[in-house]
Amino acid sequence: MQEPVQDLFTVNNLWMMIATILVFIMHLGFATLEAGLTRSKNTVNILFKNTIIPAIGLLTYALVGFNLMYPGADFAGSFFGFGGLGLSLPEGWDSSNYNAGYTYFTDFIFQAMFAATAATIVSGAVAERIKLGPFITFSILYVAFIYPIVGMWKWGGGFLNTLETPFYDFAGSTIVHSVGGWGALVGAYLLGPRIGKYTAQGMKAIPGHSIPMATMGVFLLWFGWFGFNGGSVLSASPGLVSKVFVTTSLAAAAGAFGALIVSYIKFKTYDITMVLNGILAGLVGITAGADQMGILDSIIIGFIGGGLVVFGVVLFDKIKIDDPVGAISVHLVGGIWGTLAVGLFGDLAGMSQVISQLIGIGATAVFCFGTAWLIFFTIKKTIGIRVDEKEEVEGLDINEHSMRAYPDFMTKD
Amino acid sequence: MQEPVQDLFTVNNLWMMIATILVFIMHLGFATLEAGLTRSKNTVNILFKNTIIPAIGLLTYALVGFNLMYPGADFAGSFFGFGGLGLSLPEGWDSSNYNAGYTYFTDFIFQAMFAATAATIVSGAVAERIKLGPFITFSILYVAFIYPIVGMWKWGGGFLNTLETPFYDFAGSTIVHSVGGWGALVGAYLLGPRIGKYTAQGMKAIPGHSIPMATMGVFLLWFGWFGFNGGSVLSASPGLVSKVFVTTSLAAAAGAFGALIVSYIKFKTYDITMVLNGILAGLVGITAGADQMGILDSIIIGFIGGGLVVFGVVLFDKIKIDDPVGAISVHLVGGIWGTLAVGLFGDLAGMSQVISQLIGIGATAVFCFGTAWLIFFTIKKTIGIRVDEKEEVEGLDINEHSMRAYPDFMTKD
Amino acid sequence: MQEPVQDLFTVNNLWMMIATILVFIMHLGFATLEAGLTRSKNTVNILFKNTIIPAIGLLTYALVGFNLMYPGADFAGSFFGFGGLGLSLPEGWDSSNYNAGYTYFTDFIFQAMFAATAATIVSGAVAERIKLGPFITFSILYVAFIYPIVGMWKWGGGFLNTLETPFYDFAGSTIVHSVGGWGALVGAYLLGPRIGKYTAQGMKAIPGHSIPMATMGVFLLWFGWFGFNGGSVLSASPGLVSKVFVTTSLAAAAGAFGALIVSYIKFKTYDITMVLNGILAGLVGITAGADQMGILDSIIIGFIGGGLVVFGVVLFDKIKIDDPVGAISVHLVGGIWGTLAVGLFGDLAGMSQVISQLIGIGATAVFCFGTAWLIFFTIKKTIGIRVDEKEEVEGLDINEHSMRAYPDFMTKD
Repeated sequence: MQEPVQDLFTVNNLWMMIATILVFIMHLGFATLEAGLTRSKNTVNILFKNTIIPAIGLLTYALVGFNLMYPGADFAGSFFGFGGLGLSLPEGWDSSNYNAGYTYFTDFIFQAMFAATAATIVSGAVAERIKLGPFITFSILYVAFIYPIVGMWKWGGGFLNTLETPFYDFAGSTIVHSVGGWGALVGAYLLGPRIGKYTAQGMKAIPGHSIPMATMGVFLLWFGWFGFNGGSVLSASPGLVSKVFVTTSLAAAAGAFGALIVSYIKFKTYDITMVLNGILAGLVGITAGADQMGILDSIIIGFIGGGLVVFGVVLFDKIKIDDPVGAISVHLVGGIWGTLAVGLFGDLAGMSQVISQLIGIGATAVFCFGTAWLIFFTIKKTIGIRVDEKEEVEGLDINEHSMRAYPDFMTKD
Repeated sequence: MQEPVQDLFTVNNLWMMIATILVFIMHLGFATLEAGLTRSKNTVNILFKNTIIPAIGLLTYALVGFNLMYPGADFAGSFFGFGGLGLSLPEGWDSSNYNAGYTYFTDFIFQAMFAATAATIVSGAVAERIKLGPFITFSILYVAFIYPIVGMWKWGGGFLNTLETPFYDFAGSTIVHSVGGWGALVGAYLLGPRIGKYTAQGMKAIPGHSIPMATMGVFLLWFGWFGFNGGSVLSASPGLVSKVFVTTSLAAAAGAFGALIVSYIKFKTYDITMVLNGILAGLVGITAGADQMGILDSIIIGFIGGGLVVFGVVLFDKIKIDDPVGAISVHLVGGIWGTLAVGLFGDLAGMSQVISQLIGIGATAVFCFGTAWLIFFTIKKTIGIRVDEKEEVEGLDINEHSMRAYPDFMTKD
Repeated sequence: MQEPVQDLFTVNNLWMMIATILVFIMHLGFATLEAGLTRSKNTVNILFKNTIIPAIGLLTYALVGFNLMYPGADFAGSFFGFGGLGLSLPEGWDSSNYNAGYTYFTDFIFQAMFAATAATIVSGAVAERIKLGPFITFSILYVAFIYPIVGMWKWGGGFLNTLETPFYDFAGSTIVHSVGGWGALVGAYLLGPRIGKYTAQGMKAIPGHSIPMATMGVFLLWFGWFGFNGGSVLSASPGLVSKVFVTTSLAAAAGAFGALIVSYIKFKTYDITMVLNGILAGLVGITAGADQMGILDSIIIGFIGGGLVVFGVVLFDKIKIDDPVGAISVHLVGGIWGTLAVGLFGDLAGMSQVISQLIGIGATAVFCFGTAWLIFFTIKKTIGIRVDEKEEVEGLDINEHSMRAYPDFMTKD
């Protein structure tokens, strides 16, 4: 009698585990994207950060993050809750008694893979000039505490979920991407631009050292996004997951064209970095409503997201916020756009939804901007946050890591 | 009562969605393979093409391709049919009422990921000298119209499927790979060889700029092929899918050895590019009959496919058709070989099958050669198809994209 | 009545097939890791080896390996058995009559993907100086005969499985990683160090040519390890597989920190290659008991594994065994540590288990050390095993493969 249910549980759990693996490999995508879009003298440093961040994410999420984000009814208020240190197996953890879609351990590991993402987004915006120790300190605090607290507001049953019209964020345009994006904005601002970026003669492009690596990064991120969005269905529900695959892919494709067209009009050239970031912005944009959108909605959301990324990159350069990889434009601008879009398109569209979306965006903005500022500013005033000029010019690799990324090759610097 | 069926439907659909993801990542495989086997001055251009092609594929397949390929009984003749613009959900689209193996959206997205492949194959053969705009134009037309029409002949229930002995092409040796291969042949021929390739002193090898990228490409393609062939079972049927995994992998392995042995005999060196293309030829070769072949059949088919690729590369150089990555030898020669092999080996072997296979090969040849010629020739005579000499020598990256793939490194050109 | 069982069988088999794909892509991980940690003049050679090894693994495992490792009751003693040449389908091969978790073909292909791993591990330790022909000869013999025979001792029902307290090795810390590790040790010793590695002035670091490739390799290996360990559950059992995902990931994360901390203390720098190898050592360490360990156990095992790898690298350099990628420290030291850890931590901990683990470690050591020595020594005394000095200095690529990995770039040698 119970067999069929158990079968379905096994399938659901299988999909959630596979989604976990897909989200895991996004960290390689972030690593190669960020390394590709920056200079070869800082490549080891960037890879080091992106390798250690998932490790930090997994360990801190096991220690405190999971229980901050999902504190359970007994331990939570609307804004904050904590279920205790470490992981502890509830009754029936490995059956549909715990959850119809997955076991306790699947729940943990899927969420843990998400957690590190927020810090990874910051990494790109502060690249090529932040000291390693301070960045790791920031990452630990941001991943262990800030991200899970915001996550709790919605996914852990907090106040954003109990609004009259609940704030909606399917897979994290705000909860994940904007959280990272605010940290990126604060970090890039407090650090200041890289030496030589904004000169008396105007803005100077500092091209990334490997377009193949950047391209690989975007493909891997898109690949992983099938798990990021598809896994956020929280079961293998055929209708829902397959719909999410379609909305996600069409938004990515439309994001490529949005960025291609806008950047061609603005710059009169086929700029691959814009197309790559356009794909990502399309993905970030659809993430909040990937289960709520129709075909045309998805294409519009992705297309606008892709276009916005070009304007964003130009805008942040204009106000001299130096973001080497365009992370703020992709994750913060794209995240806000996607979150708003849930109120404008698809099954939930309506004014009261728009207001709830704005509440979620605003609350996240205030909290993340404030805490990121507190952390980065404290570090800046104590141990310091930026490498010295000599180190920045020579590259972080040789100074922080005593090695080069490509020692066999002759480079121009 | 219906639960068990629903469970199985969920599993089947899950596999088809995973197969979709695997086919998606093949586009990164194509991108890195093609970029690796060509020169660094054209790398941005190649990555740009390979990034935009899946976007084109997804959007055009949503707009017209899917309904051209699967027009449905009401809208189809034997040679052509069209179910209307855009996607529209049929009754029961998310249950086994639509299909025992997958939902409507899974059907669409799996097929859409296939669609872009045809244009990607062409990309490699025309690399390093085709203008970007014309190539994108060709790709849109080829992916949106030509590929789905040929696909309909077999997979959409058209005339190749209703022959007395139906033409058999399990996962697309002809329908996908030869379709791309004919476009590649026509494009490479009409463009002419790259400057300096065939000189009065004979053929000059133009080595690819990154063997690691090429190798990565082949591994990713093999990885994706588990979804390409395994997904073509159209369900998670344990016996069939696992058999397809075995035949596919053994053919790839044997293809490596076929190319290794033949190329060692011919060139007296261990040529990794031949081994890599041999793996691909083994994969293309098994694709038409991956579900029909036994262990030994698969090894023989792969081995011969791998050997043929070496002869193919030599042959096309002899007749001065310049194919920088060997795409014609892999996808067209391999595709024809694999399609024929269904008549020679395995469960369907027999003279009447051979004849049906030849009909399918021939019909595809005539239609694809003709339409590809029409498109490329029209472009050539109007807006032009080839970059000018200065641009070709300097590289497409700096001229079409205003950037370099590796700006930090010192290169030899 | 039988439907529900059949559903579950389909899910189980699906997971095992996906695990197969994940283990397959580990070969790309090994390829990029090894190539990244060695010099660019030997890159083609390394990629060639790593491409041909999976092909060798698949073909020899089909021919003899599978039937040596799983000879079946009729054909096996405690130490050796053989079920005959080639693959032959047993009754009910595609149903749960063959196995509750997978079909015969899934069984074969999952195991075949594992098989090649042993030779791949050796490849890293002997890199940059071994002749290609001899290495391929060794690989064929080691993969076709040595690995399956050891595997049979435990997984095929041999003497290690029938000890009073059976030797325990969940996914192969000993059976796979130490088997490779012993071959690596013997090979590196018999070859001698690379020219210029140990000089009168002391040990000279020979840095790898691409940290990005090495990083990518480790991410891909971790990615694949979800299939390597998760697939070793041999079904999609929600509780077990998800637990294995968590123990595996936490051990990897802790391995990163173990290596980071120990290497920072020893070398006063953030050494990314140590962190990368620390992750791998954490993964190798947890592999023997991934299903038996708790949260804290996994973190401790991984952390110690990561620390050990730093000591291992230093130790082997001290005794002048030149292992360019640290394969012996990762796979042999890590494998022994992980195997022992099953007796020290987790559900099986106890003195009698420690003894059984030591028996397994010892038997594998004696057999693998002996056979690897026999093979390598015989080759050395007949056709020779090491390239000549000129070839080593110029690089293997140009001498064995007549090509360069990066012909467009200016290199320092």
